[in-house]
Amino acid sequence: MNRLLADLRIVELSAFVAAPLGGMTMAQFGAEVIRIDPIGGGIDFNRWPVTQDGASLYWAGMNKGKRSVALALDKPEGRELAQAIATAPGPKDNERGGGIVLTNLPPLPGLDYASLKAKRGDVILLRLIGNRDGSAAVDYTVNAASGFPMVTGRTSSEGGAPVNNVVPAWDIAAGLYLATSLLAAERHRAHTGEGQEVVAALADVMLTAVGHLGYIGDVAINGHARPAIGNDLYGSFGRDFATSDARRVMIIALTPRQWRSLGRATGLADKLALIGQMMEVDLDTETGRYEARDAIAALLARWCAGKTLAEIAAAFSGSGVLWGPYQDFVELVHNDPRCSPANPLFAEVEQPGIGRYPMPGLPLDFSASPREPTRPAPRLGEHTDQVLSEVLGLPAREIARLHEAGITAGPERR
Amino acid sequence: MNRLLADLRIVELSAFVAAPLGGMTMAQFGAEVIRIDPIGGGIDFNRWPVTQDGASLYWAGMNKGKRSVALALDKPEGRELAQAIATAPGPKDNERGGGIVLTNLPPLPGLDYASLKAKRGDVILLRLIGNRDGSAAVDYTVNAASGFPMVTGRTSSEGGAPVNNVVPAWDIAAGLYLATSLLAAERHRAHTGEGQEVVAALADVMLTAVGHLGYIGDVAINGHARPAIGNDLYGSFGRDFATSDARRVMIIALTPRQWRSLGRATGLADKLALIGQMMEVDLDTETGRYEARDAIAALLARWCAGKTLAEIAAAFSGSGVLWGPYQDFVELVHNDPRCSPANPLFAEVEQPGIGRYPMPGLPLDFSASPREPTRPAPRLGEHTDQVLSEVLGLPAREIARLHEAGITAGPERR
Repeated sequence: MNRLLADLRIVELSAFVAAPLGGMTMAQFGAEVIRIDPIGGGIDFNRWPVTQDGASLYWAGMNKGKRSVALALDKPEGRELAQAIATAPGPKDNERGGGIVLTNLPPLPGLDYASLKAKRGDVILLRLIGNRDGSAAVDYTVNAASGFPMVTGRTSSEGGAPVNNVVPAWDIAAGLYLATSLLAAERHRAHTGEGQEVVAALADVMLTAVGHLGYIGDVAINGHARPAIGNDLYGSFGRDFATSDARRVMIIALTPRQWRSLGRATGLADKLALIGQMMEVDLDTETGRYEARDAIAALLARWCAGKTLAEIAAAFSGSGVLWGPYQDFVELVHNDPRCSPANPLFAEVEQPGIGRYPMPGLPLDFSASPREPTRPAPRLGEHTDQVLSEVLGLPAREIARLHEAGITAGPERR
Repeated sequence: MNRLLADLRIVELSAFVAAPLGGMTMAQFGAEVIRIDPIGGGIDFNRWPVTQDGASLYWAGMNKGKRSVALALDKPEGRELAQAIATAPGPKDNERGGGIVLTNLPPLPGLDYASLKAKRGDVILLRLIGNRDGSAAVDYTVNAASGFPMVTGRTSSEGGAPVNNVVPAWDIAAGLYLATSLLAAERHRAHTGEGQEVVAALADVMLTAVGHLGYIGDVAINGHARPAIGNDLYGSFGRDFATSDARRVMIIALTPRQWRSLGRATGLADKLALIGQMMEVDLDTETGRYEARDAIAALLARWCAGKTLAEIAAAFSGSGVLWGPYQDFVELVHNDPRCSPANPLFAEVEQPGIGRYPMPGLPLDFSASPREPTRPAPRLGEHTDQVLSEVLGLPAREIARLHEAGITAGPERR
């Protein structure tokens, strides 16, 4: 966390990864982010991974540092409160800093752009949809259409079924595109007074990546798609290898410098040079290394198979070789110092209803705004009363009436 | 493209995906983005995919809409020019809009934060490094450490080797974190006059995602990592199925509504209900569907195997079922209307040295700043003379001298 955006308030009507990540990123920059959920929780409130008690580690992960307000969004009075919060003046008596709404849910009555704008002329609404035509799409379906699962985890000669990413790459990219766009739209509003509606389609986020990486051009210009090549790096040298102690390492030589370092550190430089002669390629070029990759890998596989991970690490230490070991989530959390409070990225945070564990903050350090401790996710409805009082200025009597009428709810224990 | 950031100039010293994507995103918002490369091109200038002539579709994809300046960065005079461009007043006579530098390369003398700040007090330098301790890391090595390859493309019972993402998810996320952070730092500078250095580590970007998704908590609190479950959705129902015409589809039921739609659209509601009884789970919960997923999949597999993709599409059309077909890159480019100029995201662009093909713009539409056509990538050095003249105000004689002295280079044909 830092304080760079402490004069902004963002209201989030969201679920799952993309919009929650966009909003949480703003919270990590110090913005006041109010996530409004239906009483009892939204459709992602129990998303896995969960604890033994069923508390969602995922929900906690995606909502750190936000305020949580629980409203009866199925009733007009609940939606009116949501609209009032979404269009209220900003925090710190900064009128301009409010009126920013981030959502990836279908618009509720009164919370569409026209209604919000009628209430506050300079409102900014950022909406993530599935497909541009309004039809549903999520990371899993968008990924299936992307072409990537057909070239993941297998080689063309093996054939076989597509392999899904486990990383929700499209949701993550969409959330960060929303964060960037929020700041661009807020900047425009600060300069001109003008709000706007910003609409992104998750399918389009995927398509930009396929295009930017050159894979659309590859088909359109070259007339073919890149092959499935397992874990190999496309167009240069990179592959994974087994060690003598049943670990695996990824070894890469993208640049001539990395290639020379690899020859030196393994003591295989002379033998690798023979491959160039044998295959009639220039191993100082990416294309040459890619064409000769099976021969290169044959030498490296034998070299790695004769060494433990620790021996390989020692051989490569300070050598300029680009490499890294594979590890699973348990090894990452238990053994990798980067994934611990030794890394300023992390803080041990007490998450109500779950316990104490290391939570990451923003993966960037700003010299003009020092890192502040990561804050836990709220309990659902934890800030309902506070927000009704501070943001809407409702008196205690009215807040009590709303609770009794079932229009609002306070913090839930779970 | 739009014009929201047309008063900003960003200077990029970069290669590969992350920083180029961050800079290109700014260019797609209308900023003037000047990528400075060594004469002859940087280490990513020939990155695959390439055309038959060796022109990089990847480089073109990552540098659309930028200006390209080629300088002898190995000589003091070349680096001085780079420093002068990086610290020059902004475009459109907007002093404040310049002095923003984005890099993922090791700092050259004169282009580190201290030197840039000495030249322009309010400079903003955004730097992506591999690991926080300065050691090298790229998407491939960071991904190997993330834990994701151990649960991708296989089940725990199968065991086997890790499976890499083909999508460079960490680079993409890092590029978009840089874009967000650039705007947050520029906003701070506009408010206070203060510049700053912003440093991100690619490994930290990966760690934030692992943490946000709940996988660190899963190990720390529950004491175990999520299992490898192939293409299944973790914690609810989702799996891929073969059709009678040798296609595959992903079918998902994350929410109770999607689950009921699936039963209705397949005509399997009654049989699916038996599974609830049989497995003693509540199929209206995510956990229930996850526990019973193999039984659910057995029914759906038979249903899909008896139908062509077209028949499945007809059955699911308008049904509320969340699903999508798999396709490879060729099918995506040739058959998917979303990946064509029928989608306003795309324009057919003539890329010098390569040809005409559909290029994506920004995956968001801004109501206050209409979409403008995507622009091609520059030729290497295409804007050297223009930038020396417009940004540095050098006279033609001096520009000619610099060329002759080998300090600068103009556009290269390839």
